[in-house]
Amino acid sequence: MRWQYIGNIIGILLVFLGAVMVFPLGCSFIYNDGSLMAILLSMGATFCAGCGLFFISRRPDIEYINPREGIAIVALGWSAIGLFGALPFYFGDAVPCFTDAVFESVSGFTTTGSSVFSNIEGVSKSLLFWRSFIQWLGGMGIIVLSLAILPFLGVGGMQLFKAEVPSPVPDKLTPRLSESAKILWYVYALISVLEVLFLMGGGMGFYDALCHAFTTMPTGGFSTKNASVAHFDNAYFDFVIVLFMVLAGINFSLHYQLLRGRTLIFWRDSECRFFLMMCLGLTLVVTFDLYGTVYDSVSTAFRYASFQIVSIVTTTGYATADYELWPGLSQVIIFICMFVGASAGSTGGGMKCARLMVCMKYCYRELFTLIHPRSVAQVKINDAVVPDHVLKSIMGFLGIYLLLFVVCSVLLAAMGIDMLTSLGAVASCIGNIGPGFGTVGPVDNFAHIPMAGKWLLLWCMLLGRLEIYTVIILLVPEFWKK
Amino acid sequence: MRWQYIGNIIGILLVFLGAVMVFPLGCSFIYNDGSLMAILLSMGATFCAGCGLFFISRRPDIEYINPREGIAIVALGWSAIGLFGALPFYFGDAVPCFTDAVFESVSGFTTTGSSVFSNIEGVSKSLLFWRSFIQWLGGMGIIVLSLAILPFLGVGGMQLFKAEVPSPVPDKLTPRLSESAKILWYVYALISVLEVLFLMGGGMGFYDALCHAFTTMPTGGFSTKNASVAHFDNAYFDFVIVLFMVLAGINFSLHYQLLRGRTLIFWRDSECRFFLMMCLGLTLVVTFDLYGTVYDSVSTAFRYASFQIVSIVTTTGYATADYELWPGLSQVIIFICMFVGASAGSTGGGMKCARLMVCMKYCYRELFTLIHPRSVAQVKINDAVVPDHVLKSIMGFLGIYLLLFVVCSVLLAAMGIDMLTSLGAVASCIGNIGPGFGTVGPVDNFAHIPMAGKWLLLWCMLLGRLEIYTVIILLVPEFWKK
Ligand SMILES: [K+]
Ligand SMILES: [K+]
Repeated sequence: MRWQYIGNIIGILLVFLGAVMVFPLGCSFIYNDGSLMAILLSMGATFCAGCGLFFISRRPDIEYINPREGIAIVALGWSAIGLFGALPFYFGDAVPCFTDAVFESVSGFTTTGSSVFSNIEGVSKSLLFWRSFIQWLGGMGIIVLSLAILPFLGVGGMQLFKAEVPSPVPDKLTPRLSESAKILWYVYALISVLEVLFLMGGGMGFYDALCHAFTTMPTGGFSTKNASVAHFDNAYFDFVIVLFMVLAGINFSLHYQLLRGRTLIFWRDSECRFFLMMCLGLTLVVTFDLYGTVYDSVSTAFRYASFQIVSIVTTTGYATADYELWPGLSQVIIFICMFVGASAGSTGGGMKCARLMVCMKYCYRELFTLIHPRSVAQVKINDAVVPDHVLKSIMGFLGIYLLLFVVCSVLLAAMGIDMLTSLGAVASCIGNIGPGFGTVGPVDNFAHIPMAGKWLLLWCMLLGRLEIYTVIILLVPEFWKK
Repeated sequence: MRWQYIGNIIGILLVFLGAVMVFPLGCSFIYNDGSLMAILLSMGATFCAGCGLFFISRRPDIEYINPREGIAIVALGWSAIGLFGALPFYFGDAVPCFTDAVFESVSGFTTTGSSVFSNIEGVSKSLLFWRSFIQWLGGMGIIVLSLAILPFLGVGGMQLFKAEVPSPVPDKLTPRLSESAKILWYVYALISVLEVLFLMGGGMGFYDALCHAFTTMPTGGFSTKNASVAHFDNAYFDFVIVLFMVLAGINFSLHYQLLRGRTLIFWRDSECRFFLMMCLGLTLVVTFDLYGTVYDSVSTAFRYASFQIVSIVTTTGYATADYELWPGLSQVIIFICMFVGASAGSTGGGMKCARLMVCMKYCYRELFTLIHPRSVAQVKINDAVVPDHVLKSIMGFLGIYLLLFVVCSVLLAAMGIDMLTSLGAVASCIGNIGPGFGTVGPVDNFAHIPMAGKWLLLWCMLLGRLEIYTVIILLVPEFWKK
């Protein structure tokens, strides 16, 4: 582990973070909302820390970063950015303590969207802008991480990260990291701009449209309003946001291929088809469940069902209704959706559709083997056989995901939180969703969770966002040896 | 699929079932409780149905039963026995409808212990005896199924069932099915007699002692009292029952080895050690959680914590306290324990400790592979390498278990049941535990579940009891072909 290289790259990330604080600074200047000094101070501190790290460390030859160092950079880099991104909230007095600031910041950069702000509308405009903007930055990071860095590390000998993206990606995009990143970010920015235009076309102000696009595309879910998207109570906005949440839940390399003219790619890709059919199917079931029990008209039931289902399945976490008041069926579906998540290679969290598909096919194969003991059944995704070591990685991933869910739920409950809230909060944070169940439902917030619980949950967010392995491996002593 | 052979064996099972109804008949005669005619009628019907099936079918040469027919016999046999075992409850007017009678009977034979009796003490003594006795019979069936039949089928080419018992069993016991069965039943009966003596020694009447031994040893959990074991409010009884629940949760072949003089076998066997340490560890955590919040003294907290934890971990389902009134930590632990279950080869249900140990080692191996990509790490249990196909079977089993839990919870919720109850009831029934959460907690019963829900849940009980594959495979069209 060559710490000087790791420090150098994290230093660069912090300098970059300090630099982009110029946007909330400009925002504060325009709206004259009193957060100017807080942001300037944060900017200075972040910039100095970044430069300091950069200069005391050595510039690595990027070719020689080994996989282990790659993992350390990803995990520690995300943590450092979460820590320094919290400064504006802390200096701007938006939160009562530093823990809360870090929680909000990590919740942003991991695109989770769980909030400790009890009165969002009481926070200054520039800080709310920062809160939305860091989700958008987090989304950029995730796309590149899951589509370029993790498979890249995989090629370097680590079969596991190759397994993370069993989608037709690495061979389709230009292989070099920086070019892939540029293409993906271009697509990401393009769709974000489209959403801003669509929202403004419906009459939403530029500031709100921008902030919501910044949190839709990374499936982040922070809103500038206390009541989340329900604040606008506008079917057109609901519809637009549902549309863009769905787009954000699709593998971004498919968007790229669509732009290249492969018009049927969403349907041809089996994961994407699974994801779209799941969104549609669950929406219809929940619509059926809500019609007559909660809403009097089918169209209203469909509107709220589609929004909430897409919001949870894509792991965005916006709300236009309190699903905790819905009937049992809808609640069970939403609880289960918290584990499913969106497509691999999208900005969504959770287990990812691809892994779940592989798991189901794996289970079916076991049944099939019981009937035909001598046959060698294979698991296929998009007509390609999933190699055995990738299967193992995926089943291992799902196992660790659930084991960690269990362990963290027990730990959170040990802090005096009730069962439903513990299970819901941990499921929500590991899945990078935002709202949970119990006292952290869609109309509640995370402010009342004890301090130790907040640190546990923000660790869960990092865990889920960085695909479990990257974070949990830091706890294995073997990792640090030699 | 040679139906005549299957019919013949099920016929023999029914004749046997009709024959053992002589015990409740005798009980009814002694107590003169008015159920004599109902039991006679049931006995006659079961006997006739059994003889009918036996004579219209052909006697198979047991050597030529193929694995597929073996599976069909296990699944259909258990179902048939559940159906005919319901007759005494139905004819004896202990239940309002046939569905309830079948629910109670299947709950008995699968050793689940979920009840639809709202007033247990209002049911005649002979019917309550039958209710306890069928759990004891179910336990006998399970021991032989999991330690002799499933591995036996496995040897015949089905790797899967071999995977079910990765314990040092088949090679240690005499290989022939009938002899293995005799030895195991002898051990089972011996421990049951011991429990009766211990309970009577503390002052419990013979009838109650017998009925409770009949439901402790198969980890069944039916009690003759409305308040379950809490009725006696006696620390000595609690202690004795905890001890025997633990014994019932241990692989019965280990008991046999203990009787043969291998005194340290409980500690040497890694699954048993895991199981015992888990019982102890969780009891201590829950004691700590309850002390000061629910109970004022450490000893009282320990008494109730140990009873409830052991009851759920061993999947017995007795209650001396309502854990739904306990703090969040204890509730989360109990909810998770519903999935864990006892040892493979015991009478307990759930996923089984051995499978969970394998899963954890599998996950750790995946992490290890990430650090040392070139190493070939192996999963070991009791110093023996678990073969790759067994690993796959186990991971597949856990995957199917959880997928079915999810599907059945959604289906139950679709019948208008709230989320907590749906999740709790399905977890409890698939795990063969008994009580769940919400409106089916330890002080509630299953009477209020709609009829379709009861059929779903009793299917879940069979599913869990027959190790998932045996039941779910009947739904795969491939299974019936050719
Ligand atoms: K989110
Ligand atoms: K039970």
